[in-house]
Amino acid sequence: MKRIIVIPDSYKGSLSSAEVCSVIQRAILDELPQCEVICIPVADGGEGTTDAFLTALGGEKIPCKCSGPLGKPVQTYYGGFDRFAVLEMASCAGLTLLEEKAPLDASTFGVGEQILHALQRGYRKLIIGIGGSATTDGGCGMASALGVKFFDDHGNSFSPTGRSLKNIKSIDISTINPLVKEAEFITMCDISNPLYGKNGAAYIFGPQKGADPDTVRFLDEGLCHLAKIIERDLGTDISHIPGGGAAGGLGAGLYAFLQSKIQMGIDTVLEYTDFRSKAQNADLVITGEGRLDHQTLSGKVACGVGKASSALGIPAIAIVGSVEPGFHNFSDLGLTAVFDTVTAPMSLEEALPYTEENIAATVRSILHLYRAYHPHH
Amino acid sequence: MKRIIVIPDSYKGSLSSAEVCSVIQRAILDELPQCEVICIPVADGGEGTTDAFLTALGGEKIPCKCSGPLGKPVQTYYGGFDRFAVLEMASCAGLTLLEEKAPLDASTFGVGEQILHALQRGYRKLIIGIGGSATTDGGCGMASALGVKFFDDHGNSFSPTGRSLKNIKSIDISTINPLVKEAEFITMCDISNPLYGKNGAAYIFGPQKGADPDTVRFLDEGLCHLAKIIERDLGTDISHIPGGGAAGGLGAGLYAFLQSKIQMGIDTVLEYTDFRSKAQNADLVITGEGRLDHQTLSGKVACGVGKASSALGIPAIAIVGSVEPGFHNFSDLGLTAVFDTVTAPMSLEEALPYTEENIAATVRSILHLYRAYHPHH
Repeated sequence: MKRIIVIPDSYKGSLSSAEVCSVIQRAILDELPQCEVICIPVADGGEGTTDAFLTALGGEKIPCKCSGPLGKPVQTYYGGFDRFAVLEMASCAGLTLLEEKAPLDASTFGVGEQILHALQRGYRKLIIGIGGSATTDGGCGMASALGVKFFDDHGNSFSPTGRSLKNIKSIDISTINPLVKEAEFITMCDISNPLYGKNGAAYIFGPQKGADPDTVRFLDEGLCHLAKIIERDLGTDISHIPGGGAAGGLGAGLYAFLQSKIQMGIDTVLEYTDFRSKAQNADLVITGEGRLDHQTLSGKVACGVGKASSALGIPAIAIVGSVEPGFHNFSDLGLTAVFDTVTAPMSLEEALPYTEENIAATVRSILHLYRAYHPHH
Repeated sequence: MKRIIVIPDSYKGSLSSAEVCSVIQRAILDELPQCEVICIPVADGGEGTTDAFLTALGGEKIPCKCSGPLGKPVQTYYGGFDRFAVLEMASCAGLTLLEEKAPLDASTFGVGEQILHALQRGYRKLIIGIGGSATTDGGCGMASALGVKFFDDHGNSFSPTGRSLKNIKSIDISTINPLVKEAEFITMCDISNPLYGKNGAAYIFGPQKGADPDTVRFLDEGLCHLAKIIERDLGTDISHIPGGGAAGGLGAGLYAFLQSKIQMGIDTVLEYTDFRSKAQNADLVITGEGRLDHQTLSGKVACGVGKASSALGIPAIAIVGSVEPGFHNFSDLGLTAVFDTVTAPMSLEEALPYTEENIAATVRSILHLYRAYHPHH
């Protein structure tokens, strides 16, 4: 083998996709020291998205100062590449930036500032990873930073947060920074929850952001109210779009205010990391993920990679933390083979510490076998 | 691939080696319908040993009537092959033949009758699988059937069982059937317990044959007494030979009375099933076993097959129920690769029902991958 593409998802709860990449890369080089290994850690829009693209593509780490979730300035960065920039909402509005959770007051204002920074630097295609948010403001903070005006009862403009969503009387989008209209936005997000309702941003993700049941209900009403005003003033129905509820409604906000499209992490990565041209001359593609099962096939990295590889005629294998018992129709996914990394009956807790070495052992087994049939490779 | 040798152990507690063979064979033919699959289920000396050889070699099922553990006649068979016969002690002295356990009275007399049958039919090399016994007679029943005389205090000859071992005053082996001296015997057995003592036949295996603690002690004393008489009258020290305690001391009895050598199942199978000549033209050897770990490597089928295959330069893979976490030095075992069949964190009980389909899925994955690189095979 002369070239292998390594393009895994994270093993949730265990290893980041970049860590999985480096485990697999080392195992490959143990067996095939001459092999060119191309690592493309897959990002899902959450924390690590920018770094994943930087690992895959090189590119430039562009420093940027912007507002944190409660207005305190944070020093952050985004990724600058030839044809686009990659931003990560968690870097300026993420839950991990707060010492104390603030479900009513956290704002995505910094996300808007970061977008503006990238636009002003000349980027006209922005990939925005959303996930890990502290906010439930429907993206209103982000929109404010970009010049959208939100008015209250008294005709005063303000930047709404979860606490003040219900105070919005009208929205004027005509004041948005004109650079926005020149640009194309892609929201990267792996969840499909709607903006509001029982499966919406407040009910599903509010509690982990610190919202008690009353606050959840209050935030949900605010998001529902926002959707009505947006439909009336902008003519856009955001009440049902899948992923609208991601990042406290930032998914819906990006859709309504920036006409962003919402796309799965793996689809975005395959499209923007030159996977197809890199894989063209590859002998093998190795993907991986925490678990492969029936239910959630559509968003699975292994599935996306399998189909893309099979379209190119390149063998693709998935090395997964676990496979749902009875699930074996991997060739429907475009995968040539699936191997798991649990080696004996044990609990998840017992298995986790062995994940890295079992991934490596599986890779070595496969390549060892390959070499047995190709002694001169 | 034109030819694959399938030579697995049983998955203890789950599948017999013949069942593992047929699962793997079917999976191979799913992927490679033209492939010649040669199945050699590995026997360990216990129940199924004769059938395993018959599956591997063809051969003749030779019917034979002999005494059961308590003297009741049983209709049984042994395997007749070109150069040797394969007998199975469990067929005439096995625990499963008894409705009620009889640790003091069960006898290996039928084993001796079966041996005589094979000798009289002209076989001069006998492989005797021992395991699954109901007996703790030190092989005295077997020896009696072949003409060995055991004398009590009063000079009367008798056929000792566990109950009467201590009554043996002297042994006369000169009366043994002369055919015995013309023949060679191989005892197949995968355990290494000595005849008596804390790790001996009575203490370790007596309880499962129905012996309570007093009976265990009594049987152990009997076996110890037998060893002393044998040493005095036959000049053979059987007190420490590994495997002497197998099948209630039949291991030691075969050694003392028939000069049988004691050999691991896998070594016997590799030697007597023409593994080496069959594997010579094979493209792949697939072995398997319930569990692969550090402790018990020496007797492991995967290990024996790995070394034999690697000596021939044929790639060998092991598909195992489980691998001890952290155990990855499979290339020391001569194996090209090791794959396990547990696909997710779960208990042994949860995993067992999926064993067959997971073995099959693993085989298909491997061959699918092979085919991706050898489209014309």
